[in-house]
Amino acid sequence: MIVAYDGTNYRGWQVQPNGITVEEVLNEKLSELFGEKITVTGASRTDSGVHSLGNVAVFDTETRMPADKIAFALNQRLPEDIVIQGSCEVPADWHPRYQNSRKTYEYRILNRTFRMPTRRLDTYFYHYPLDAERMNRAAQYLVGEHDFKSFCSIHSQAETTVRTVYACGVRKEGDLITIRITGSGFLYNMVRIIAGTLIRVGSGNLEPELLPDILEKRNRDAAGPTAPAHGLTMIGILYEA
Amino acid sequence: MIVAYDGTNYRGWQVQPNGITVEEVLNEKLSELFGEKITVTGASRTDSGVHSLGNVAVFDTETRMPADKIAFALNQRLPEDIVIQGSCEVPADWHPRYQNSRKTYEYRILNRTFRMPTRRLDTYFYHYPLDAERMNRAAQYLVGEHDFKSFCSIHSQAETTVRTVYACGVRKEGDLITIRITGSGFLYNMVRIIAGTLIRVGSGNLEPELLPDILEKRNRDAAGPTAPAHGLTMIGILYEA
Repeated sequence: MIVAYDGTNYRGWQVQPNGITVEEVLNEKLSELFGEKITVTGASRTDSGVHSLGNVAVFDTETRMPADKIAFALNQRLPEDIVIQGSCEVPADWHPRYQNSRKTYEYRILNRTFRMPTRRLDTYFYHYPLDAERMNRAAQYLVGEHDFKSFCSIHSQAETTVRTVYACGVRKEGDLITIRITGSGFLYNMVRIIAGTLIRVGSGNLEPELLPDILEKRNRDAAGPTAPAHGLTMIGILYEA
Repeated sequence: MIVAYDGTNYRGWQVQPNGITVEEVLNEKLSELFGEKITVTGASRTDSGVHSLGNVAVFDTETRMPADKIAFALNQRLPEDIVIQGSCEVPADWHPRYQNSRKTYEYRILNRTFRMPTRRLDTYFYHYPLDAERMNRAAQYLVGEHDFKSFCSIHSQAETTVRTVYACGVRKEGDLITIRITGSGFLYNMVRIIAGTLIRVGSGNLEPELLPDILEKRNRDAAGPTAPAHGLTMIGILYEA
């Protein structure tokens, strides 16, 4: 299933003791729909407040309902802030995190003098003027295979911190600055730390040419702060054949 | 003051007995700020659920606070879904509805197979495919000075139903169709009835070339349905010198 959600009212994707999560709602509503216990596995375990247009989740079921009809049937039961965008059958051993894939995220910054209420839930408001061209220049140093340890939360348990970024671009449309990044996979908080670092570049507090040094240091303290979750949206995942 | 708000949680602009309104919140917070009873007058009395990037409100006050500082001081007290975008002094007899002005609204339609949760509050979801080019063609018949009685709620108490539309365009970006309309003023529900009529055109249920007939009939039943409020955003008002 392709899963879109407004993350505002959820404590992220993954089931956890404090507060409701997207995974938990999907498990409950699918179990109701099929009358059997269903447990989904998600591709991207997004944090509290992060949004998604195209996360991916799989599950096993005994149902005879055609796979492409499940999206419609499940949407009837889901709250309005979670909507399945499509469903299909996959091989029984297909795991959404163990396939080669390209994941795309966007981090959105509303860069203006006053907050804009209609964009408060899906953009990070940043008051001081940002130079998007300068941010884009810095972003290019992240493209390629690198050790992203400097851009990884110290709470990560990843075995390796080497990842491949296929593309990273910063564009400005009116007062909205969007960082779009596509990679083989992302470390814990990686996109938000990249966003926090590019914001430091955009505000003139860090030179774009220092990005290679930050990568080389392999130290979380070398990069900028972790930008707030609500500016982040998981855009989609392309699985390679 | 230029007033932006997410209209989702308000019963529109104007003070009324059932539920909280934007005008009421402004009156309360301004009265608190200045320690005197303040009553604002708004330019556009938007309906329940309608959003604004740039409504205009004026008020009288005894304060010595510089006019341009009021936006910042008031924003400290306002809820996060109402944000003042700027403030300045105007002549004592200046009334935001009795000046010559150009008001711009946008009506946004999300035209795709599945609802998108992150856009549910500020776009109208419409499932059947719409032809935006065809809608744009129909929209051109509305430009100019016309009697818009067919596009006016029967509950309107306007003295005259003649209005001037300066521009009306429909554009499509991905799955988002935006109707943008600028006029001298709008009748009750006029933009939403125009949107509902253009949606009928876009879905193939009405010929663009019939718009002049609809205008000529001067009868609400000749036009399409009133599109839902949450797709509508007041963009801004340009006052003529």
